[in-house]
Amino acid sequence: MKAIDIKEEKIVLVELPIPQPKQGEVLIKIKASAINRADLAQRNGLYPPPPGASPIMGLECSGIIEALGEGVKTRLVGEEVCALLAGGGYAEYVTCPEQQVTSVPKGLDWIESASIPEVYATCWLNLFMEGNLTAGNKVLFHAGASGIGTAGIQLCNNFGCESFISAGTKEKIEFCINLGASGGSIREKVFEEIQEWSPEGVDIILDPVGANYLEGNLKVLGLEGKLIIIGLMSGMQTDINLGHLMMKRQRIIGSTIRARSVELKGEVMKDLETKVWPLFSDGSIKPIIHEVFELQDVEKAHSVMERNENIGKVVLKVD
Amino acid sequence: MKAIDIKEEKIVLVELPIPQPKQGEVLIKIKASAINRADLAQRNGLYPPPPGASPIMGLECSGIIEALGEGVKTRLVGEEVCALLAGGGYAEYVTCPEQQVTSVPKGLDWIESASIPEVYATCWLNLFMEGNLTAGNKVLFHAGASGIGTAGIQLCNNFGCESFISAGTKEKIEFCINLGASGGSIREKVFEEIQEWSPEGVDIILDPVGANYLEGNLKVLGLEGKLIIIGLMSGMQTDINLGHLMMKRQRIIGSTIRARSVELKGEVMKDLETKVWPLFSDGSIKPIIHEVFELQDVEKAHSVMERNENIGKVVLKVD
Repeated sequence: MKAIDIKEEKIVLVELPIPQPKQGEVLIKIKASAINRADLAQRNGLYPPPPGASPIMGLECSGIIEALGEGVKTRLVGEEVCALLAGGGYAEYVTCPEQQVTSVPKGLDWIESASIPEVYATCWLNLFMEGNLTAGNKVLFHAGASGIGTAGIQLCNNFGCESFISAGTKEKIEFCINLGASGGSIREKVFEEIQEWSPEGVDIILDPVGANYLEGNLKVLGLEGKLIIIGLMSGMQTDINLGHLMMKRQRIIGSTIRARSVELKGEVMKDLETKVWPLFSDGSIKPIIHEVFELQDVEKAHSVMERNENIGKVVLKVD
Repeated sequence: MKAIDIKEEKIVLVELPIPQPKQGEVLIKIKASAINRADLAQRNGLYPPPPGASPIMGLECSGIIEALGEGVKTRLVGEEVCALLAGGGYAEYVTCPEQQVTSVPKGLDWIESASIPEVYATCWLNLFMEGNLTAGNKVLFHAGASGIGTAGIQLCNNFGCESFISAGTKEKIEFCINLGASGGSIREKVFEEIQEWSPEGVDIILDPVGANYLEGNLKVLGLEGKLIIIGLMSGMQTDINLGHLMMKRQRIIGSTIRARSVELKGEVMKDLETKVWPLFSDGSIKPIIHEVFELQDVEKAHSVMERNENIGKVVLKVD
């Protein structure tokens, strides 16, 4: 099969054997995959795949089940699915545990279906399972126009919550407001400008920025608010004032999804299939796709994300 | 009634009117109260009472219900009780919401009953409600010989968990080990020495120290471990490396009990009455009392705690 490999930090298209599904795994013939920021870090050697995962990049895909490993009970050959992967999506075939697979939401095409597993799984895990998001909550998304941001805004809209975002350009802010965010600010300005929208502080912050935003985040986080750190784009070392944290009984939660157990990922995907995928089918939530590239053009696709140009997801068409 | 007041940071015994129980409150004739580190901070002007609370120090007491406010449903005049207070314990009478009152555990005297509400409520809230303590968990208590530490060790023993402690002297460490801790270290040495006991890291850390221990705490906290900060004895400003927090999916939780809602405190006290007080009655848990002072000797009682001399609680005999 064709697959993308990394040789001395260069991206190359190589020919590899089709993987065999192990016990409890399915083999998927991939129709499309999508880019995540973690792929860029992996390519630069900063985010090694967890033990046992494919060394190939790619954390999500859509496609057709081609074969089943021993003991698979919930999936059939020929099913049209999308999947959350621990790796291996930049290829024509991938194997993954059956729990990480769902049916394609009715009405979505292959490109759209490939663009949703990772960002919706990340949002679901962090907003609902870690953050206990409740109707009436106010949420701040940094990088609001990212795949995760645009997913988070729409989940808030559909579960009775309000959101505010930060982003790098006015165009991105406008896009997010049209998508349903209550407001937005250019980068760090959010820590001043959000205070009018939420004078009591927000309930949840989903933050891929890390060090540089920690002080501002704790400042605008409300009583018993949760700061969920899902990335460290600005670095990891910084100062912290624990006084604020104590007085407001705030929580800081470090969160990643890739290294979590298959069971946990299975729970997340089951929730998505029953509670979120129907919202795609009835048009309440829309996949937000910035651009689609061919598999061999991964380099170009990564560049779009490296330059922070994208609004929503960058997708790879495989077949 | 006699009560302790603060005049220019000096402690004075004054005569004040007996407070009247408001709607939903009981009036308690106090038999004994106890010292908490928060009292020392309040005395120095660093920890003002929450809005609506008595300006008098004292966060717990034992005594007899003398009168009921309107609408009180769960308590009767003449009942022997102990109570978690938002303030007012250093006096002959105090009022508090009925939810914060429990019966005295069978077999405990007034002194013993006054020594348990605050530390057991703090441990219950943080270990079980915030920390989701589960049988088999490993817990680190800093200041292991404090009221909270000695309560925490005994709760761990009785709920299938193991504990390790830090303390300032060998004598205190020995006391904690005799009480049931698996081991202990002198202050910061714990961050090296605990690693043999818990190479995978601990599940929960209950920390009254704050800034100076943050780095060490995150180092010895395991996967999805919870650092619960309940005090800032060493200060509030420090450095943090968010990389560790992310990689291990750790949580930092700022926690105080005094400013929490009456409802939450009521839940905690109800749990204590049904799940922990019986363990006092059958001897599974013992109140740990360092020394007892008369109400007018608050100054001396505070000095014992200021010099970190106490193992367990310092109690005030009121009547």
